[in-house]
Amino acid sequence: MARSRSIRLDPIGLVRTEARLEELEHGDARSEIIVDKRLSKALDGIDKFSHIFVLFWLHETKKSERKLLKVHPRHRLYIPEQGIFATRSRFRPNPIGLTVVKLLKKVGNRLVVKGLDAYDGTPVLDLKPYDHWDRLDRIRVPDWWKKLEKEDRCE
Amino acid sequence: MARSRSIRLDPIGLVRTEARLEELEHGDARSEIIVDKRLSKALDGIDKFSHIFVLFWLHETKKSERKLLKVHPRHRLYIPEQGIFATRSRFRPNPIGLTVVKLLKKVGNRLVVKGLDAYDGTPVLDLKPYDHWDRLDRIRVPDWWKKLEKEDRCE
Repeated sequence: MARSRSIRLDPIGLVRTEARLEELEHGDARSEIIVDKRLSKALDGIDKFSHIFVLFWLHETKKSERKLLKVHPRHRLYIPEQGIFATRSRFRPNPIGLTVVKLLKKVGNRLVVKGLDAYDGTPVLDLKPYDHWDRLDRIRVPDWWKKLEKEDRCE
Repeated sequence: MARSRSIRLDPIGLVRTEARLEELEHGDARSEIIVDKRLSKALDGIDKFSHIFVLFWLHETKKSERKLLKVHPRHRLYIPEQGIFATRSRFRPNPIGLTVVKLLKKVGNRLVVKGLDAYDGTPVLDLKPYDHWDRLDRIRVPDWWKKLEKEDRCE
């Protein structure tokens, strides 16, 4: 299959946060999403939702890291390598980050959110309301994934 | 704020489906995601997850539609216009579709999925496992959104 023509995106805004790396990883961080002022009207009504998806561009991912096909999840060497589409690693062909955040406040073109694991300066690509359809009751994940979740809770 | 430099993406695969429009919209459709063969290894282990996020490129969205800031959700004129970031409309600056699907089967570089609301031929940008963290118990959505959800169930 030929890889069809390239796609061009322009960021709609960027992330501002003073949170440190650990806070970002633990989902406790407060951040601001500063949306391009020309798009302010596109935020109308977003604050009626408690949670939103943030799609962002993992801009620190290097070109060589976009070519990796398998990784040890979260650099844990004791977990066998997995295909990158079976992980949420930032090493992926199109390094788009996806996180559900709590929307705390909207002030003009700024959204104050909790739980965004994106560094200060990260370009934002899209914002979408989180819906009941996005919430699944019965899901299955592999054992290595459960182990990582447990480590997260105990750290 | 200056809109920073553009981002370039290459599709990782595409959607194949024979489902009609209504089936796609109702979340019942079976589709296949055909991943570029050069990326087959990146799928290793994905079938240990029951559900995955599919990020796809809404390639039929016109340039002019990417400039819209507000829309009547799902073209329902009785619902007041909302900012596009408060909707899941395909009219958005970066028309990336995001859907959680059930992963039924992996055969080589092909994934058979259920619930993907993307047309035949849609370019796929990324695949991510659906995690417990993506599942929120208490969420708030606006009244107009609940009304649309109810219409969906009754159609």
